[in-house]
Amino acid sequence: MRTILLLILLAVSAPIVAQSEDEKQLRAIYDMALTNGKAYDWLNHLSNQIGGRLSGSVQAQQAVDYTKGQLDSLGLDRVWLQPVMVPKWVRGTPEFAYIETKPGLTTNVPICALGGSVATPEGGVKAKVVEVQGIEDLEKLGREKIEGNIVFYNRPMDPKLISTFASYSGCVDQRYSGAAEAGKYGAAGVIVRSMTLRLDDYPHTGSMAYGDTPVANRVPAAAISTQGAELLSTTLKLNPDIKFYFKQSCKQFDDVESFNVIGEIRGTTHPNEIMVIGGHLDSWDLGDGSHDDGAGCVQSMDVLRLLKETGYKPKRTLRVVLFMNEENGLRGGNKYAEVARNKNEKHVFALESDAGGFTPRGFSFDCSEENLAQVQSWKGLFEPYLIHMFVKGYSGADIGPLKHEGLVLAGLRPDSQRYFDHHHAENDTFEHVNKRELELGTATMASLVYLMDKYGTIPDTKIKG
Amino acid sequence: MRTILLLILLAVSAPIVAQSEDEKQLRAIYDMALTNGKAYDWLNHLSNQIGGRLSGSVQAQQAVDYTKGQLDSLGLDRVWLQPVMVPKWVRGTPEFAYIETKPGLTTNVPICALGGSVATPEGGVKAKVVEVQGIEDLEKLGREKIEGNIVFYNRPMDPKLISTFASYSGCVDQRYSGAAEAGKYGAAGVIVRSMTLRLDDYPHTGSMAYGDTPVANRVPAAAISTQGAELLSTTLKLNPDIKFYFKQSCKQFDDVESFNVIGEIRGTTHPNEIMVIGGHLDSWDLGDGSHDDGAGCVQSMDVLRLLKETGYKPKRTLRVVLFMNEENGLRGGNKYAEVARNKNEKHVFALESDAGGFTPRGFSFDCSEENLAQVQSWKGLFEPYLIHMFVKGYSGADIGPLKHEGLVLAGLRPDSQRYFDHHHAENDTFEHVNKRELELGTATMASLVYLMDKYGTIPDTKIKG
Repeated sequence: MRTILLLILLAVSAPIVAQSEDEKQLRAIYDMALTNGKAYDWLNHLSNQIGGRLSGSVQAQQAVDYTKGQLDSLGLDRVWLQPVMVPKWVRGTPEFAYIETKPGLTTNVPICALGGSVATPEGGVKAKVVEVQGIEDLEKLGREKIEGNIVFYNRPMDPKLISTFASYSGCVDQRYSGAAEAGKYGAAGVIVRSMTLRLDDYPHTGSMAYGDTPVANRVPAAAISTQGAELLSTTLKLNPDIKFYFKQSCKQFDDVESFNVIGEIRGTTHPNEIMVIGGHLDSWDLGDGSHDDGAGCVQSMDVLRLLKETGYKPKRTLRVVLFMNEENGLRGGNKYAEVARNKNEKHVFALESDAGGFTPRGFSFDCSEENLAQVQSWKGLFEPYLIHMFVKGYSGADIGPLKHEGLVLAGLRPDSQRYFDHHHAENDTFEHVNKRELELGTATMASLVYLMDKYGTIPDTKIKG
Repeated sequence: MRTILLLILLAVSAPIVAQSEDEKQLRAIYDMALTNGKAYDWLNHLSNQIGGRLSGSVQAQQAVDYTKGQLDSLGLDRVWLQPVMVPKWVRGTPEFAYIETKPGLTTNVPICALGGSVATPEGGVKAKVVEVQGIEDLEKLGREKIEGNIVFYNRPMDPKLISTFASYSGCVDQRYSGAAEAGKYGAAGVIVRSMTLRLDDYPHTGSMAYGDTPVANRVPAAAISTQGAELLSTTLKLNPDIKFYFKQSCKQFDDVESFNVIGEIRGTTHPNEIMVIGGHLDSWDLGDGSHDDGAGCVQSMDVLRLLKETGYKPKRTLRVVLFMNEENGLRGGNKYAEVARNKNEKHVFALESDAGGFTPRGFSFDCSEENLAQVQSWKGLFEPYLIHMFVKGYSGADIGPLKHEGLVLAGLRPDSQRYFDHHHAENDTFEHVNKRELELGTATMASLVYLMDKYGTIPDTKIKG
């Protein structure tokens, strides 16, 4: 009986004492984020003074300079640039496309080249259209029906999934591999329905790859707006012999030098244990990349500032990393992990914000059950901030290459409903980011970083031992 | 040991069997809402074909006619209009205001009359300004400092509160009672900082009341945009003798007849037990009232349609009520409750959606502990839809007058971060409603209604007995 009582007392009293201090620190973090956050102002500059930051562009370099300057001003222990060679793909003249129902009778539709695509011949491509619901349809159709035609991938994102990221995952193979696959059957080009759940006039770009397709066999690929896709599909149902014309002049140049932007606060007691907080500084070129991923960058920067301003002295080294080239190469993420390995740096935790600056709902974790259980024991601390989601799952592209046994990888999970309305499109712009939603994300990240630093992750050796 | 085993088996197996059917029904509801919802189209019409629906206006009547027509088309068991006399307040000529730093040197600032305010004299009001942080400051200042001056209420909403409704509650007394209180000290007029957390140029209207202030002593009251409030406050700090001018020509007319719009599906086994689902059809006049509360109306209408279309036969009578005049009188809510009492109708559940068409987070409940516990036992069913909030709290203004022992009152709780960016202002418009967020709200409401109907609320007699 006494033992049970003691256990109960321990179980009840220990968390209460610990919580009280943690509760205070979380409250301080949220208060400062909501009353004196810097993220929104930084994002305003990145978005409205610089704009879209495609790897290798002037804007990407401006963003490197700007964010380094801002980190320099925060009084961190060290700020530096980490060189990395990145691909340079340029869109060129705005793309142009139309549906030709009969010679001379055409309707323009909004398209944009997919990132990494080759250009069309200078006069464009005009051909009949074969509509498919996915790559698996190509084999059934065979070379006979595809050769010389434009393949039109039109499988929409599934609106029934609550996570729009799950809908996206179920469709994005069309965009990424559609051209490489259609090229094998002699297609003249590829048009892909934009990866969004909205019906509107914005084409959404994004990365694609030709794999081992010989250069001579690479076919141009473009995204068409969802309204354009609906029109094209309907028109094809009325007359399968209509033609589609598109022209794009995008070009891949030689790789150029760019940088990851890094700043850190040295840990007081475990300086060799590194905790990374980051987003990616590059974006696509159509909008200004506010949600993808300006938001994640400015949040990550503000996490360090908030912890510093609230007077917290981290035990471990906190490192903000603004990764270059997530969108079309992941060179920054790979370079960062490579350097870390070469230097034998010990990373214990990495958190990425790359799902938009929307109201945070929680985190997904790529880690051991033991570490997940520890995180879930903190749930109560996050309740007042309406943060409920602490699940296993994907963390983030840029921190992925760091993955090793014992490392806790985490991704911020904001509300996902509006993300793909803007993703990789002209309307990914500053006015679609709500200041408070962005700041709540920052505070939620900073709170997790604080707890992870204070209590430490559970090392793999301990779990196994 | 056996007893324990049995208890465990009961505890585990009973919910699993029940859940399976419920899980299926919730999935069917969400699927239909997300693929075949009507709410967004209805809202498009209400917002873009009709517009702001201030009580007593032509637009309010058009909204009555339109929604009745749509309900008629759904094949419900009964659709009707419930007459109710409503106040008719008209804004008149657009308001005009400026800060006069010295004679001839003026800066215009955006204002709007508060709903229910009297007009200024035809030539406007020009006077010195006394800035206060709240009603309680008036007594300290006294008649000497207030008489003949304009009282400027400038206490901002608290950004530190996570629920923006809590921030709003902490400020709205300035808007509602500020003029009545300042009038007692002989103020010439009242200017109130707009109830929003953003800094922008939109003035936000809203209801105010003079209480028992004699007509002759009623002073005009207007809201100023937050940017305008900041400018006025800064200017006053530089020179307390500057003057403020404003002019408005709003007017209160005699009450006119309007209607609550009601439709119902009769219950199969307990037709006399009524469950209300509703929002308010009236709105302010500055925007088109998409979030406040067009969203709640179209969601409520779609709840009945979704349940019908998924083949669910309710045991109890489900009644959608589109209340008139929530904004400046609550006459519709009061009338509905009065008629219900006179007819001895038995209401067991009432759900209101009046917090914007944003991503739903859950519900707040005004009910007994026993009923709350029942609702919380359904939490697991809502998990897949990221609905986590089942708390005690405010339900809704329109259903409030129904309150009696044993009735379960509930309010949909969407994410609140953006709500007051739009509330009662020119930018409460259709393009700020996201289709999926709206539809998720509908599905979440329909799911709760389904569960409440299927399992029944726990009557007060049973709790006490």
